[in-house]
Amino acid sequence: MKKEKLTVIKVGGKIVEEEATLNQLLQDFSAIEGYKVLVHGGGRSATKLAAQLGIESKMVNGRRITDAETLKVVTMVYGGLVNKNIVAGLQAKGVNAIGLTGADMNVIRSVKRPVKDVDYGFVGDVEKVNAELLGNLIRQGVVPVMAPLTHDGKGSMLNTNADTIAGETAKALAELFDVTLVFCFEKKGVLSDENDDDSVIPVITPELFQEYVQKGIIQGGMIPKLENSFSAIDAGVSQVVITLASAIHQQGGTVIKK
Amino acid sequence: MKKEKLTVIKVGGKIVEEEATLNQLLQDFSAIEGYKVLVHGGGRSATKLAAQLGIESKMVNGRRITDAETLKVVTMVYGGLVNKNIVAGLQAKGVNAIGLTGADMNVIRSVKRPVKDVDYGFVGDVEKVNAELLGNLIRQGVVPVMAPLTHDGKGSMLNTNADTIAGETAKALAELFDVTLVFCFEKKGVLSDENDDDSVIPVITPELFQEYVQKGIIQGGMIPKLENSFSAIDAGVSQVVITLASAIHQQGGTVIKK
Repeated sequence: MKKEKLTVIKVGGKIVEEEATLNQLLQDFSAIEGYKVLVHGGGRSATKLAAQLGIESKMVNGRRITDAETLKVVTMVYGGLVNKNIVAGLQAKGVNAIGLTGADMNVIRSVKRPVKDVDYGFVGDVEKVNAELLGNLIRQGVVPVMAPLTHDGKGSMLNTNADTIAGETAKALAELFDVTLVFCFEKKGVLSDENDDDSVIPVITPELFQEYVQKGIIQGGMIPKLENSFSAIDAGVSQVVITLASAIHQQGGTVIKK
Repeated sequence: MKKEKLTVIKVGGKIVEEEATLNQLLQDFSAIEGYKVLVHGGGRSATKLAAQLGIESKMVNGRRITDAETLKVVTMVYGGLVNKNIVAGLQAKGVNAIGLTGADMNVIRSVKRPVKDVDYGFVGDVEKVNAELLGNLIRQGVVPVMAPLTHDGKGSMLNTNADTIAGETAKALAELFDVTLVFCFEKKGVLSDENDDDSVIPVITPELFQEYVQKGIIQGGMIPKLENSFSAIDAGVSQVVITLASAIHQQGGTVIKK
């Protein structure tokens, strides 16, 4: 049976935390046809609230160290403020959104990250995504809006990277749908010349990826991002797109596929 | 066709905001058989966070004046912190909970309360409950946990009284289920002697209600509470129970019915 199309879109905190960019995103997201899921960040708002409460934000390798007080902050900001603001905004545009964390309907269960060199605190590594109930909601026309939070199945919420939420959700939904995973990016796509914003590489296959890495065209933080994209594709996601948030309902960006 | 039983339980903030009482509630709520919905408050946590952020909590007639900053606080506290803490706690007990505000799946749309003597700010008066998608979730074994927040359909969240959320949700679900609405109370039920905690009136019908009011046995704030209960029953709710939170999975308390 041919699977129906579904688009999972991940947007960073910056876009959803400022009114002008959020409004544009809501409009662009509303214009996407077919089944869809939005995954959002919210780090700037969390850092701001933490500062107002006198809680220091400690980051290691770009990840937030999440002690008990910080877990309360991210639960409030990601699961409450940012998530419900997006949901209410989408409802106003006729999109029947539902805000979810991984705890809701046990959609994503994680395990608290083991302490190695760094103790990240209440940070979750995803163990299991339950796509069935999520799929039922989507088929009824409901649009999940997912906050970067999961739970451990023992009563605690866990702070979880939004890229990971998007990737793991896309993989799990790929059993039920023909999934395109879109990572919104600050550039038009993966660039062949970092000084030329228009030098977007239209398609990257595993073979091209090897070639670009060997030639030094793709380097730095883009390498793990693309490795994650290929891992999603290996797990059944049809394609991954890296593009500008303002271009999510259009063709464009870099398409990563087999 | 005989409708299946569903219990809507409303608990105040105090119970869900303290770890010991919350744990007991989660256990008692888990023990309730059949379909169920939990509606919670969270006012103390909201007042606490507001104070930490230097926002004054203004109450009129027991209702919070909700300016733009206070709306952010209640959205964070009710929709994020308190709601997700309950959801994660129920998941740990094997209850497949989902946290919802009125914005999620457009479950409860409100209208911002018109300014008369008092400007309550971003406070919602319920206009419409959409029970269909909620009913579908419930029939799949999902247990809604509802925060005292709604939305206006124009992009704004609205602060909404938890008793009202419970009452209106119970009424709407009464079209699909045989609904018992339980209001958790600090006493064992409606008392015939306010100085005797064991003087619980077991059953109140409209006729008994008139009689008790005339005799001065029922007075003060209990009158509007019972009027609301009869309004729920008039709208199709089978019975309303006023009882201790610790007694929600047992028989007991005051039963209000036709």
